[in-house]
Amino acid sequence: MVRIVTAAVIMIGDELLSGRTQDSNLKTIAQFLNPLGVEVREARVIPDIHETIIATVRTMAERYNYVFTTGGIGPTHDDITADAVAEAFGRKIDVRADARKILADWYAGRAQEMNEGRLRMARIPDGAELILNPVSAAPGFRIANVFVMAGVPAVMRGMLEDIGHRLEGGAVVHSHTVRAAGVREGDIAAPLAELAKARPDVNFGSYPFMRPRGSKVEFGVSLVARSRDEDLVAASVTALEEIIRAQGGEPEVDPDKD
Amino acid sequence: MVRIVTAAVIMIGDELLSGRTQDSNLKTIAQFLNPLGVEVREARVIPDIHETIIATVRTMAERYNYVFTTGGIGPTHDDITADAVAEAFGRKIDVRADARKILADWYAGRAQEMNEGRLRMARIPDGAELILNPVSAAPGFRIANVFVMAGVPAVMRGMLEDIGHRLEGGAVVHSHTVRAAGVREGDIAAPLAELAKARPDVNFGSYPFMRPRGSKVEFGVSLVARSRDEDLVAASVTALEEIIRAQGGEPEVDPDKD
Repeated sequence: MVRIVTAAVIMIGDELLSGRTQDSNLKTIAQFLNPLGVEVREARVIPDIHETIIATVRTMAERYNYVFTTGGIGPTHDDITADAVAEAFGRKIDVRADARKILADWYAGRAQEMNEGRLRMARIPDGAELILNPVSAAPGFRIANVFVMAGVPAVMRGMLEDIGHRLEGGAVVHSHTVRAAGVREGDIAAPLAELAKARPDVNFGSYPFMRPRGSKVEFGVSLVARSRDEDLVAASVTALEEIIRAQGGEPEVDPDKD
Repeated sequence: MVRIVTAAVIMIGDELLSGRTQDSNLKTIAQFLNPLGVEVREARVIPDIHETIIATVRTMAERYNYVFTTGGIGPTHDDITADAVAEAFGRKIDVRADARKILADWYAGRAQEMNEGRLRMARIPDGAELILNPVSAAPGFRIANVFVMAGVPAVMRGMLEDIGHRLEGGAVVHSHTVRAAGVREGDIAAPLAELAKARPDVNFGSYPFMRPRGSKVEFGVSLVARSRDEDLVAASVTALEEIIRAQGGEPEVDPDKD
């Protein structure tokens, strides 16, 4: 039996919904989890509202094996994620000695004072495990299957390094992309649909692209085959290349996209 | 009584959840809607699964004034959004004459054949209004309060131009950002929290930044005041500048972020 492990990502912050900030954490988290055999099935962007965070964390934690949240664990009044996640699990939350020591040591070496705002970042729910932050010290934490991380991308990436070893992954989804310039989606739709029907265990995706080429714009299509069975992916790539050649295209394999 | 108009964005596509593709549509849509007085309250990224699309569209359409979907309306077998949205509203869907004519005219002028795959893009639910696509012709559509758009960012932006005039906006949320280099979030957390308490009608956000400055990295903080009352925002900006000056910082106003 193939073990399937799923995850959801919750991105918390008014700035993402107002269009002020461009999220990049979802992509980073998904690319980090793929080779570990953890598949992101859903993502939600929600505002800094206590009740919304609680309800969303509870729903996602029940529905998926793992949940990753980003945002809302800084020192200011609008950083309310830690308190909301504590409440979602019925845990108390307060400044915790282990987190406080990490911050105190960090600030002591940098001529920054440990004040009330910074102490907020040592508020950790009872029973949670810390997630270390190699960039700016203030830790994230884990309760049950929920990992609470910072929103700043560099900090979030640092925290992921302290998360991988705690995950029990399942079967990895293998993915391979074949690109072809000069071939349009509309021209390969019929043979691609036939292939998808013939191979129900493979997930085929088709994504048009445009890119600059000298003084012109070059169009083309990227065809992706995904499956937990690596042999099926390899066979599918061969079939995709045939579809492209039948259209007079030249298949390119894109190593960055696999 | 201040009229509040809300929206949700649903981004549909396995490629967003696998980390293959970086979404930029949420930010574009939010920035387009803000000045029209439509506030994005939630966004969801969901996979290309028929039942998931139906359930998510129904939930969001009930909860918010408007819903915007991106992705899944191209010519290939994995483009299943139109059929799912039709089912969400109990409408039949088939190739529609008006959409078919738009595509036929477009391809006739470009030496591309109208085949079965391309004809898929003329599948429009009964009673839906078309959304014109100035980039690649294949239209989006509107049913009730749901606007169904392409996922390719250039196409999606083109479709937005045919949507604004159909929206009835409410009171605009005004927003103003004050930046200060050399000031850290942890240093202004306490006075900012006091200000937020004193002005409950204003939403204050605090976002740390790092940016290259010569051979060093400069850190700082962006403070944002948001409110439907423009005078309250203006007064808040003055208060934010005072908080920054009290820390020895020099407030900069960032015109790109307002």
